[in-house]
Amino acid sequence: MIYITRKEHFNAAHKLHRADWTEEKNAEVFGKCANPNWHGHNYEVFVTVKGEPAAETGFVIDLKFLSKLIKERVIDKLDHKNINMDVDFMKDKMASTEILTIAIWEQLEAEINAKGCYLHCVKLYETENNFVEYFGGK
Amino acid sequence: MIYITRKEHFNAAHKLHRADWTEEKNAEVFGKCANPNWHGHNYEVFVTVKGEPAAETGFVIDLKFLSKLIKERVIDKLDHKNINMDVDFMKDKMASTEILTIAIWEQLEAEINAKGCYLHCVKLYETENNFVEYFGGK
Amino acid sequence: MIYITRKEHFNAAHKLHRADWTEEKNAEVFGKCANPNWHGHNYEVFVTVKGEPAAETGFVIDLKFLSKLIKERVIDKLDHKNINMDVDFMKDKMASTEILTIAIWEQLEAEINAKGCYLHCVKLYETENNFVEYFGGK
Amino acid sequence: MIYITRKEHFNAAHKLHRADWTEEKNAEVFGKCANPNWHGHNYEVFVTVKGEPAAETGFVIDLKFLSKLIKERVIDKLDHKNINMDVDFMKDKMASTEILTIAIWEQLEAEINAKGCYLHCVKLYETENNFVEYFGGK
Amino acid sequence: MIYITRKEHFNAAHKLHRADWTEEKNAEVFGKCANPNWHGHNYEVFVTVKGEPAAETGFVIDLKFLSKLIKERVIDKLDHKNINMDVDFMKDKMASTEILTIAIWEQLEAEINAKGCYLHCVKLYETENNFVEYFGGK
Amino acid sequence: MIYITRKEHFNAAHKLHRADWTEEKNAEVFGKCANPNWHGHNYEVFVTVKGEPAAETGFVIDLKFLSKLIKERVIDKLDHKNINMDVDFMKDKMASTEILTIAIWEQLEAEINAKGCYLHCVKLYETENNFVEYFGGK
Repeated sequence: MIYITRKEHFNAAHKLHRADWTEEKNAEVFGKCANPNWHGHNYEVFVTVKGEPAAETGFVIDLKFLSKLIKERVIDKLDHKNINMDVDFMKDKMASTEILTIAIWEQLEAEINAKGCYLHCVKLYETENNFVEYFGGK
Repeated sequence: MIYITRKEHFNAAHKLHRADWTEEKNAEVFGKCANPNWHGHNYEVFVTVKGEPAAETGFVIDLKFLSKLIKERVIDKLDHKNINMDVDFMKDKMASTEILTIAIWEQLEAEINAKGCYLHCVKLYETENNFVEYFGGK
Repeated sequence: MIYITRKEHFNAAHKLHRADWTEEKNAEVFGKCANPNWHGHNYEVFVTVKGEPAAETGFVIDLKFLSKLIKERVIDKLDHKNINMDVDFMKDKMASTEILTIAIWEQLEAEINAKGCYLHCVKLYETENNFVEYFGGK
Repeated sequence: MIYITRKEHFNAAHKLHRADWTEEKNAEVFGKCANPNWHGHNYEVFVTVKGEPAAETGFVIDLKFLSKLIKERVIDKLDHKNINMDVDFMKDKMASTEILTIAIWEQLEAEINAKGCYLHCVKLYETENNFVEYFGGK
Repeated sequence: MIYITRKEHFNAAHKLHRADWTEEKNAEVFGKCANPNWHGHNYEVFVTVKGEPAAETGFVIDLKFLSKLIKERVIDKLDHKNINMDVDFMKDKMASTEILTIAIWEQLEAEINAKGCYLHCVKLYETENNFVEYFGGK
Repeated sequence: MIYITRKEHFNAAHKLHRADWTEEKNAEVFGKCANPNWHGHNYEVFVTVKGEPAAETGFVIDLKFLSKLIKERVIDKLDHKNINMDVDFMKDKMASTEILTIAIWEQLEAEINAKGCYLHCVKLYETENNFVEYFGGK
């Protein structure tokens, strides 16, 4: 098995906030991330696919296809957007890095696995100091 | 002369938008950066001070002082904030990287120059691909 | 399961040296790292925690708590210190990256696991070219 | 078990190209990477070894040995070379990152495992946006 | 005056070689860079423009325009190409980083300066350890 | 004029400390950097040379020569050393980044300028957050 990874990035605004909590409780639990007027990040997303290299091409997956898929299903929906307000696949979800990572996995899994290989990991950097990895519901 | 630089960072939301323009004109001029619901970045700011090293300490400026000054006058006002809405020194200004860089300079110049050295440059990264430098009104 | 990682850093001096060996043998085995007068590094430590995101917050672990824990139990004891001489949890141990990584794990494991999640990995960079990972005594 | 990683780098030219295909088919499948006159990269290779730290030294493997081994068996053969034309261990193979990663593993495995530890992973960056990992034929 | 910089990258093959020298002399002067079968790099190019921010937009230059200009006149001609063989503006020139940096400046200067601002610097990284800067024929 | 830069690195221990001050005054002025038992850093040094590219080679300076010169006169004396105790050219000087940068300049200037070009800048990173630049005694 070979694991191949493609990195893409997007810039987005978000806040960590529950409408069913007071501002005080939001601030207490989420700290600076609860700022009602939003803040934002330069996110980096790493998508890892595993499989066997094809005999003819030496490819596990065509990176041109993978990059285009990530752009259409993830980057175009998140880049220069507000994660809480603008993103269909994050509707009614917490805009935490953890939940966003799982949602990105769900955007990609079926189309990657239809290519005869497997989505192995989605890794999402919120800052250079914090990142999340998800390996699917296993 | 010696030049010494300190890097700090903050995460903030912003948009490029003029209230006196239509949404169409904002989108045409500012592109994705005009998204009404904001987007955001992990900003990095580099502050460069020039001067002669003191004989006793070998210091141009005490980096503990410089770091504390940047935190109080720049980072605490910008980090996890909305640049257009939350920041006193950006009130009624365009939240472009260029204008923000000049405004950071103005936050720092007097207190640094009072130390017997000179603020030389403020460099602000919006993303790893875009940055702005300002050397004062010269 | 979700894996979330926090990066912190510290600057420290050390040497690789056995008191029960001659200087010649120390130099032969440990090379430049045996310099009796010490050398040092900018270390980066990555702490990875695994668990399920909480329904209310979307958090596996509160990163504010995790960062504070790493600072109190690891960074404050190592930063601007001599690993061989100044660090209680490295007393009588080799100051190799391998042994230091295991010792950092032991500083963190109990308090992280008491939060309903699991310490998964400690990764320690000594330089950009060398790093060590430890996943516990499994 | 402890995992220790050493990074090395090399600069090389290559193309993705099959002599048994037309130029048109090569261009269709491999895109810009099929340019007949070659292109190139600054490759970074990460070699991870797992084992138990030795009691006397705290080492899983002597990094001076590991670095010298990677230089002799991998870097000296690839650095400032044409991967398709100049490299004995890539003869008659596709110069894809996937196939090159497996070939680097085969260059290193026996001599590392003879040291009482195990080659765990070879990770090869072609660009900062694309990398491949191989964990052996398991 | 404000200085704004845009980074772009390209992957290319080259060699340092004079047809009027013997292979021996080429190897003696250019070392590994003279390999007849080429080698290559992931180049990064930083283009810095200076000017006054426009009152309406806060822009020195529209980065969308600058990025498109760099892509059309520099990146599309160099990316996945052989610098010695494939690039019109490098014909009959040494493919050294120094000469390439000047040639990139000449590709960009007129169109940037026609925008009411000034091309200030082209900075070209060949590897993370080597880069060249050119500020024009001053 | 063309500016070309070469990066090298070294790992060293140091402290900021005056023997003619009490421990209390050292701690008050130099903070954590005064730890009597030393601390250390992974330093990165960038050496910039300016000149005209030679007609035959396209080189301002032969980077093989420049790299060898930096290694012999700077890196070999600092790497895996104690800056306060082990380095001839730092004897009786404060081991601050500012003073070390000037001392590195003095190690290099004469031999670079003898090559028909000019040492332009020495830039020294102590950490990723702090660096110093020196352009000579002008």
